[in-house]
Amino acid sequence: MDELKQSRVRLIFDNANFVRDLGMQLTRIEDEYCETVLIPSARHRQQHGLIHAGVLATMADHSSGCSARSAVGLDQDVVSVEFKINFLRPAIGDRLRCRGSVRRSGRMLVV
Amino acid sequence: MDELKQSRVRLIFDNANFVRDLGMQLTRIEDEYCETVLIPSARHRQQHGLIHAGVLATMADHSSGCSARSAVGLDQDVVSVEFKINFLRPAIGDRLRCRGSVRRSGRMLVV
Amino acid sequence: MDELKQSRVRLIFDNANFVRDLGMQLTRIEDEYCETVLIPSARHRQQHGLIHAGVLATMADHSSGCSARSAVGLDQDVVSVEFKINFLRPAIGDRLRCRGSVRRSGRMLVV
Amino acid sequence: MDELKQSRVRLIFDNANFVRDLGMQLTRIEDEYCETVLIPSARHRQQHGLIHAGVLATMADHSSGCSARSAVGLDQDVVSVEFKINFLRPAIGDRLRCRGSVRRSGRMLVV
Repeated sequence: MDELKQSRVRLIFDNANFVRDLGMQLTRIEDEYCETVLIPSARHRQQHGLIHAGVLATMADHSSGCSARSAVGLDQDVVSVEFKINFLRPAIGDRLRCRGSVRRSGRMLVV
Repeated sequence: MDELKQSRVRLIFDNANFVRDLGMQLTRIEDEYCETVLIPSARHRQQHGLIHAGVLATMADHSSGCSARSAVGLDQDVVSVEFKINFLRPAIGDRLRCRGSVRRSGRMLVV
Repeated sequence: MDELKQSRVRLIFDNANFVRDLGMQLTRIEDEYCETVLIPSARHRQQHGLIHAGVLATMADHSSGCSARSAVGLDQDVVSVEFKINFLRPAIGDRLRCRGSVRRSGRMLVV
Repeated sequence: MDELKQSRVRLIFDNANFVRDLGMQLTRIEDEYCETVLIPSARHRQQHGLIHAGVLATMADHSSGCSARSAVGLDQDVVSVEFKINFLRPAIGDRLRCRGSVRRSGRMLVV
């Protein structure tokens, strides 16, 4: 993958305070794909001791955003307009991995 | 509103580490309704300087959850199974308020 | 409301075979708003005798589309890119009414 | 796959007037999976000549419902509570195929 584009994707990560603050790491960048990892700790939990839905949503949103960024031109940028998330099972474990990939890249929208 | 139920809603808030860590405050509890407030700071931002979508999603999710908790029996609990969010405009400003309300309370699902 | 724009909204309705075939009627057009009506019959039902979710989704989609069309320029057109629907209660009754309204009208997206 | 369960899935199809009326056919049933086919005609179109989003939503909803029915007990039934759909590209062509599969089958919800 193009190094310049890779650096643009990385910038989305490095310049996002909230994502750094959460402890998310960008572990892989490919064309229209990226992976992120989070080591959950006590602060990421909700009232039942599970990882908070908002943490999962943040990972999903930002990982998708990174993969979308890799799908558009160097001079273009992306911003989230909507997402839908289903929580299929309780998030536990000592390492969360999130995979973001592009299903369809259009002129105005990337899904 | 019943004080005991109100305290149960408050517990959802007080016991959720991630929500406390973000700085969210529960400012109002009514039947099937609640309001939360967040004073955004630098750490809540994404790469363009806006409030991160994940912060908004966390507020929306947790505020909805609190309103749902107020709609079910004292001996019942709630957990998020899914949500959809549209980002209608950039989140800026020095105070975010989120209103959670119940549209439909069923035996198994609250929307 | 501008008559020319009203006629453009009506065209979305009149030229949509599937909507006419279903029996949907456009009963009201305003700026960023429209109402449609369907008189349900046996053919609209699913296996439990309720109105099929697909009928409700079609009404919601097309009514939203009409309201969105009224929100954009005369020389612009709209097409559905996504929707989310919650089925809050069983659809019964002898007259279904659907209200479509615009929450946010942007340059590229209307919600 | 169990023949009795297969027949229950088929019933969801055969007893759904709207689905029969549209011309949808159930072409494959497996555990937690099914396929449906629709031969589009003029009546399925919207104002631009594409297959109407409501037709696609109906296929997606009903095919998912069939796969969900195959995932629950013989004495249980399913009903749609919500769905989200993204329209990734214009639906054209002379044969639409829809694949429904189960991602997660819980006690109360099937996704």
